[in-house]
Amino acid sequence: NPDLASERQTASFSVEKLTAWLDGGAEQTRLRRAVVKYIERDPVFSRENQYFQSQNERYEAAVRKAVHLQKKMHEMGWSQEGPEYKYIYRELAGDIAFLLHSIFMRSISVLGSDEQIAKWIPLASQYQLIGSYAQTELGHGTYLQGLETTAVFDVTTQEFILNTPKISAMKWWPGDMGRSATHTVVFAQLYVHGKCYGIHPFIVQIRSLQDHSLCPGIIAGDIGPKMNFEHIDNGYLMLQNVRVPRENMLNKFCEVQPDGTYVRRGSQKINYFTMTSVRVSLISAEAVTPLMKACTIAIRYSAVRRQSKLKPGEEEAKILDYQTQQEKLLPQLAAAYAFHFIDDYLQELLDRGYREIQRKNFDTLPELHALSSGFKAMVTQYCTSGVEICLQACGGHGYSLLSGLPSLYTKIIASCIYEGENTVLLLQTARFLVKSFMAASTGQSVPPSVTYLAAVKHRKCPAKNKLDFLSPDIYTEAYQHMAVRLVSSTAAKLQDLIQSGVKKHDAWNQCTVQLAQAAKAHCHYITVKTFAETVEKLESKAGIQKIVKHLCDLFALHGIFSNAGVFLHDGYISGAQMDMVTASYLDLLAIIRRDAVPLVDAFDFTDKSLNSALGCYDGQVYQRLYEWARKSPTNKQISPAYEKYLKPLLHNTLSKL
Amino acid sequence: NPDLASERQTASFSVEKLTAWLDGGAEQTRLRRAVVKYIERDPVFSRENQYFQSQNERYEAAVRKAVHLQKKMHEMGWSQEGPEYKYIYRELAGDIAFLLHSIFMRSISVLGSDEQIAKWIPLASQYQLIGSYAQTELGHGTYLQGLETTAVFDVTTQEFILNTPKISAMKWWPGDMGRSATHTVVFAQLYVHGKCYGIHPFIVQIRSLQDHSLCPGIIAGDIGPKMNFEHIDNGYLMLQNVRVPRENMLNKFCEVQPDGTYVRRGSQKINYFTMTSVRVSLISAEAVTPLMKACTIAIRYSAVRRQSKLKPGEEEAKILDYQTQQEKLLPQLAAAYAFHFIDDYLQELLDRGYREIQRKNFDTLPELHALSSGFKAMVTQYCTSGVEICLQACGGHGYSLLSGLPSLYTKIIASCIYEGENTVLLLQTARFLVKSFMAASTGQSVPPSVTYLAAVKHRKCPAKNKLDFLSPDIYTEAYQHMAVRLVSSTAAKLQDLIQSGVKKHDAWNQCTVQLAQAAKAHCHYITVKTFAETVEKLESKAGIQKIVKHLCDLFALHGIFSNAGVFLHDGYISGAQMDMVTASYLDLLAIIRRDAVPLVDAFDFTDKSLNSALGCYDGQVYQRLYEWARKSPTNKQISPAYEKYLKPLLHNTLSKL
Repeated sequence: NPDLASERQTASFSVEKLTAWLDGGAEQTRLRRAVVKYIERDPVFSRENQYFQSQNERYEAAVRKAVHLQKKMHEMGWSQEGPEYKYIYRELAGDIAFLLHSIFMRSISVLGSDEQIAKWIPLASQYQLIGSYAQTELGHGTYLQGLETTAVFDVTTQEFILNTPKISAMKWWPGDMGRSATHTVVFAQLYVHGKCYGIHPFIVQIRSLQDHSLCPGIIAGDIGPKMNFEHIDNGYLMLQNVRVPRENMLNKFCEVQPDGTYVRRGSQKINYFTMTSVRVSLISAEAVTPLMKACTIAIRYSAVRRQSKLKPGEEEAKILDYQTQQEKLLPQLAAAYAFHFIDDYLQELLDRGYREIQRKNFDTLPELHALSSGFKAMVTQYCTSGVEICLQACGGHGYSLLSGLPSLYTKIIASCIYEGENTVLLLQTARFLVKSFMAASTGQSVPPSVTYLAAVKHRKCPAKNKLDFLSPDIYTEAYQHMAVRLVSSTAAKLQDLIQSGVKKHDAWNQCTVQLAQAAKAHCHYITVKTFAETVEKLESKAGIQKIVKHLCDLFALHGIFSNAGVFLHDGYISGAQMDMVTASYLDLLAIIRRDAVPLVDAFDFTDKSLNSALGCYDGQVYQRLYEWARKSPTNKQISPAYEKYLKPLLHNTLSKL
Repeated sequence: NPDLASERQTASFSVEKLTAWLDGGAEQTRLRRAVVKYIERDPVFSRENQYFQSQNERYEAAVRKAVHLQKKMHEMGWSQEGPEYKYIYRELAGDIAFLLHSIFMRSISVLGSDEQIAKWIPLASQYQLIGSYAQTELGHGTYLQGLETTAVFDVTTQEFILNTPKISAMKWWPGDMGRSATHTVVFAQLYVHGKCYGIHPFIVQIRSLQDHSLCPGIIAGDIGPKMNFEHIDNGYLMLQNVRVPRENMLNKFCEVQPDGTYVRRGSQKINYFTMTSVRVSLISAEAVTPLMKACTIAIRYSAVRRQSKLKPGEEEAKILDYQTQQEKLLPQLAAAYAFHFIDDYLQELLDRGYREIQRKNFDTLPELHALSSGFKAMVTQYCTSGVEICLQACGGHGYSLLSGLPSLYTKIIASCIYEGENTVLLLQTARFLVKSFMAASTGQSVPPSVTYLAAVKHRKCPAKNKLDFLSPDIYTEAYQHMAVRLVSSTAAKLQDLIQSGVKKHDAWNQCTVQLAQAAKAHCHYITVKTFAETVEKLESKAGIQKIVKHLCDLFALHGIFSNAGVFLHDGYISGAQMDMVTASYLDLLAIIRRDAVPLVDAFDFTDKSLNSALGCYDGQVYQRLYEWARKSPTNKQISPAYEKYLKPLLHNTLSKL
């Protein structure tokens, strides 16, 4: 398509260099491409018919892929933890089964004793069983202490008796559990001699290893249709006097001894680290990558789609040339880059934290927990809204499943809910911020990411003209000021309420809307700061620094433009300065627009991994829509509706109208 | 469920009275309930299995319902234009076929001559043919002038020869066209003696009335899977030298005479009125009603769902008691009420306009066009985002199709695109606003809805404390000031650019982001003003006025709170005043929360019309989720995946891992 070709000819930078930099080096790019090529060559992994399949068909295909993948990875000597798997996951868009099997294994590795690990991990890694992870119940999600499943220790038989005492206690949502799993880790309230010891994990077999029939006392099935994840058999599970041996309680941190004595040992703090690392790892795989794909599809399509005339007498304009279209898409593109760097930042923090923890130093945990919670919430929400904007920006064709955008959207929106509901997570971050702010105000030392709460410099933004707002110092400072103001004013409101006699918990609840806002502001500030620092470090690679700097500026100014109120509130930025922000922001749209297509090309998604009739590299949008539509099952059969209803209607043979 | 029952016992107003008022009187409520009861009694109209059906099954069911409905309406003596049909449509959530058949008929009534009407309307109304409306093409949507289908007049045979000259000219998206329609109105570029006369409508038969096979020269089919609308056979159509007689061009406004002379007659302005009335009518049916349903589901569920503890030692709290949950849902509830009144306002305007047009006075058309465009855009966007918030606020269970929320969302989002893409529409409103502002500044008279652009009173908001912000005068004035500022500053920017030598069209494009913002501000202002006026008129019905006033306040303050920047920008509202807004806004959440369940009960949706496991009147959420899930096709068969993939894997008989 000449319209796309012309966009590529005028790129202001080397796409290949930018790709390599995003991958972390040319060597990684080479490896990724080799893995992708290997996977795409194999017809089992094809997603060609995905948009036409029923939930049953999607499940079957996902199981097939998962089993095949195990074989292939074994052949190639690739491990689940290696870089290849990450690339495979990106390529397949997570569209495979057994994702919970690895969570099953990890929970045993983390929560199990050495004997338990020695017994179960080999069975699991050789797929002599298929594992799941049964935590969430119909009536309880995020609040784990409220789970209602019970496990009562029977000292006479040395067994735990597991029960689902009421319908709301039924396990609900666990992946791979509806139809596939033979075993699962069940979280239940432990009772010994009538005393409750809280939530503990138990390995429970739910299906026969011989014929896959449900084990005695087990009622399980699939929870039915969802907005997406049709390929996963999210399941329900009811337990009726199911007995498991004493050894099936995962007992690294606590044990029920044969006589019923309950013993707690070691520190469970490491658990927080697991949760933290899961949240960090999903940011890239489940939020940033889908946003990058959505940007690729929408921006390429916008360079191909022509509609209406910018100037009378001229050819119809590419829709990417309209300011409103740029304002929809380019900030999402900038955000995809911003969050890619935040992911790097969090990974680094996590690695450092992990090294400390191995030295039994748990001091970094609160900060890690706060950052991973806040960023999980902020990035998934931002990317979800970004994908939605990309979808709407493609008009009617974006609404077709064949565009690939609806399934990106219906999948990414789940990331706002799983692994901790976003509002709950933001409030955890807020709790850390308020605590840190209080500590910092009284001169105590606080973790590095929040030292800024103690030190506010300027009272007014020093920018004098619109170009000043292209200075990272100026806008980073503005974000910092704004975050400090929101944290400190909310902390003050909280204090005031408590001092006026409101009970602590009520006071907290009355501040939560503002606390969540403060947590988002903190994450937004760290994102802008990290982006600006990334640009600075790029200095040597002049070829790409300029365009990355533009993206950083755009991300920052878009944030000020669209959250103007929090910057204007105390006059830190004046109305006149806000007009400068707006002017610079709109100027940047026109600048980045020139490189928009090369900037998405740099994400280096293959056509197969995008699986989009609108987003293919060659821009043959309309041909592909037509070809793909013809394959739809709706065109494969004459509907029975004709003989049954239409013909009698048209031939007027229905009992007369 | 006792948690829901207790919410109803403490209602501060009579739900029945509010329902009757929303319906426009107790008599309408009675009629609506009678119609709903009649429909729900009939098993053909059941939507029970909807969430489990494939696209093919959905289509078949929709055709069945449509045919059955024709029969029933005939039996009952109900017409498509009567109030009963409106209630039926609301009850069935539009889940029936032949919706385009009435557009086919309307286009003939509006664009056809008396002879054409006399020929085609009886055929259509007796369903001796099934009509569709083929306007949009693969390459062109909103910009009608760009359509590429051609119709060449052949003077020798007195026929038009219709062609699809290239793939992008293929008709794409028309409803009922993929599998059902026998006829359609095709919009094509008319050529006579080599000269192009622009877009004209032609009646074209596409399928045989005998056996439904495609007519010669016709290539047509279904465009495949979409985000929703699985029940509609949106189609594609390619025309290859398809000949239709001269009489098939709809010729009320222009005719090709036998010798090829092109004659134009009468005014086409009435066309604008049709477009306008379609946009207005979809606001209620396709945007406000779905938002009301989503609010009903999410608020009832939030009063049943308990999670975590507000105070240590207490029972787990209803999630509706958390401020953050209130802040998600209650503004959406207030918006549903606000837009219900805007719908009334627009209907009244439309009726008045129609009366004028019948007197050949077309003066009201520009205002009607501007308002209907702007409100269509603003309301559909707002309601789409509101439904999404409701979905996310229900956590994991909201993500299940069984909640009813995903299908509300995937359907309502289409309303942002069809009948004019929202950004394009907002810019049409903006053009009217800029024009009116210019006229008003030079003392010319302008239509009633924009006279405010000429008269700005206060330079600063006079509010002194948070209670002042509960005064409709105060906040309506603030919205007015803000709308004037955005319109006038953007008009000034536009003038400046043009005066500095930028070409008019470029200048317009460079202002479009701000123009769209100004158009939204105008509609937001009118909404607040209309809501406040509605509350005032309620004075006599004191029983419901108080709660409706709270909703009005909430809607207005939510808008200021979440768009703080545009109010703070010029200091009209100060930072200290914004804190008062925030305080009043958060106070209102706690007040309205007490009546939240009665306020959604007043919408009076039956369980069947909600079709939601979470939103039923009795609050038996978990039981229903379980019952419904068990009916899923994923639980009706053992997946072939077991024998094919799982068993060999578990029994280690795959070629060894």
